[in-house]
Amino acid sequence: MESTSVALLVGDLTGVAVFAASGGSAAVGKRLDIFGVVFVGFVAALGGGILRDLVINQVPPLAFANWLYPATAITASLAVFWLHPHLDRLRRTVYGLDAAGLGLFTVTSTLKALDAGVPAFGACLLGMLTGIGGGLIRDLLLGEIPVVLRREIYAVASLLGAIVVAGLARSGWGNAATYTAAALLVFVVRITALYRHWSAPRPRLNAGATPGGRTGAP
Amino acid sequence: MESTSVALLVGDLTGVAVFAASGGSAAVGKRLDIFGVVFVGFVAALGGGILRDLVINQVPPLAFANWLYPATAITASLAVFWLHPHLDRLRRTVYGLDAAGLGLFTVTSTLKALDAGVPAFGACLLGMLTGIGGGLIRDLLLGEIPVVLRREIYAVASLLGAIVVAGLARSGWGNAATYTAAALLVFVVRITALYRHWSAPRPRLNAGATPGGRTGAP
Amino acid sequence: MESTSVALLVGDLTGVAVFAASGGSAAVGKRLDIFGVVFVGFVAALGGGILRDLVINQVPPLAFANWLYPATAITASLAVFWLHPHLDRLRRTVYGLDAAGLGLFTVTSTLKALDAGVPAFGACLLGMLTGIGGGLIRDLLLGEIPVVLRREIYAVASLLGAIVVAGLARSGWGNAATYTAAALLVFVVRITALYRHWSAPRPRLNAGATPGGRTGAP
Repeated sequence: MESTSVALLVGDLTGVAVFAASGGSAAVGKRLDIFGVVFVGFVAALGGGILRDLVINQVPPLAFANWLYPATAITASLAVFWLHPHLDRLRRTVYGLDAAGLGLFTVTSTLKALDAGVPAFGACLLGMLTGIGGGLIRDLLLGEIPVVLRREIYAVASLLGAIVVAGLARSGWGNAATYTAAALLVFVVRITALYRHWSAPRPRLNAGATPGGRTGAP
Repeated sequence: MESTSVALLVGDLTGVAVFAASGGSAAVGKRLDIFGVVFVGFVAALGGGILRDLVINQVPPLAFANWLYPATAITASLAVFWLHPHLDRLRRTVYGLDAAGLGLFTVTSTLKALDAGVPAFGACLLGMLTGIGGGLIRDLLLGEIPVVLRREIYAVASLLGAIVVAGLARSGWGNAATYTAAALLVFVVRITALYRHWSAPRPRLNAGATPGGRTGAP
Repeated sequence: MESTSVALLVGDLTGVAVFAASGGSAAVGKRLDIFGVVFVGFVAALGGGILRDLVINQVPPLAFANWLYPATAITASLAVFWLHPHLDRLRRTVYGLDAAGLGLFTVTSTLKALDAGVPAFGACLLGMLTGIGGGLIRDLLLGEIPVVLRREIYAVASLLGAIVVAGLARSGWGNAATYTAAALLVFVVRITALYRHWSAPRPRLNAGATPGGRTGAP
């Protein structure tokens, strides 16, 4: 039990570090100052988890209750700020870690939501939102349409993992080994999608659709 | 009592479906992929309600606690994704449903806030924020200044309805019939504003004002 | 005791008014309508505090529970809407008030977080986020990369004040006088940075860094 929760904490903090590095390097690309780089890294790493904790009424959220979380995010962002000229060579490593973080966050968040009494359907959504939420806020802060909404099988990999976790928990097959396998599944789907350039379908657009695209807007 | 809460649920879910369709069609117009369309639809339909539930400490929020809410939002978004070339002809219908959703969300949210012990002034604000919140987040996700901040009597219609609801509740005149009338009032004001091109006043700008517009920014 | 809490309320409401004026004048610069100006002013003044109250489980947040808060924000925004042609001459005053608001919000929010049992590290982060949060949401609503992430020692002044407050509270030296001094410290650092054009360091960019800036993005 003890070793499980240590493993979870290590996994969680690895995810935090990786997502902070992803946010920090996007902020460096926009020429933000050192504070901006750290802030975007912080939000990318912890924003999704803060929303999750508010939704399941775990207050104050871990990002404020446990100093290891913000300290990890800040350290990783600062590392990117100083080391970024060398990051190019690390591109594959970063992609791999990012996919690992996505898997870990999806699994731990879905489990936390189930533990808090959220029904399975909502817990899956929340697990996925936690996984993708940080990257989404990162892109909003940097003035871009979130890349997760435009490209690739990122969110879908996360949702798949969340559904597997909820299924395991309900069927009684849930344990450290099977949950780790679910995190691995997210990782493998994400990495495969990346290397095979899988993409979700886009809407067919015809001449009439462009003006119609805003019909529902108030 | 039973039939009232069924009526409320049906009204709520209708509002969810309509706002999801509005978000989804805006996302189609931006050429997001199928996941992006569903995500923007989901957030447009449920984002305002999630914020409201967090504010009144109804956790987990309905969007996660009752699967009917996300299922409705996702179905409506998928429908838009597949059907959008035909949506042009539905423009009037969509505007009408959107106004109906605004009325329903405003009334139910104001009532929920009052029930949770929020004072009347705050409950009106929260009712309006729930009504306009989804469209606001939708526009932020799509990289635009929220249209509700720029044009038309959209938020004002909602606020008016919320004030009427709070007045009814305080005076003891509140019941299913009068609350429905308040939702109708929002609907009628919104539709009239649309057809008569009513607009809220804009600031007068003179030569000196443009640089001054940012004086307060940090 | 009584007079302390009155002083805190007056300080808080002054901060609300000033931040609302800052949000409102930015919205005027973007030519939003009267509702948009009030809305952006409202969010700039109260958005950070709403997030803080959700995080420390003070529900409903003050912005909805105490009508003085929204009434102050709305009045200040309306004042900007009507008076903005004369605001140019007030630029220095506005900067000064904005810095005073930053100091007040930082100190009161850090104290509230500590009172709610948030550990010191998290309380400092939350105090700073409340101070800068309103301006951040204001810029997001107006479609800009938040200025606080790009320029000047704004957030750093706030963080410094929050750390001082946490240190005072822990060491037992905390009282109305020392907390006021902490707010003054934020004010002085912010104003000095403004007049001396201090800036936080930016990342060094070389030819290889630009494409690498997004390596971590999903």
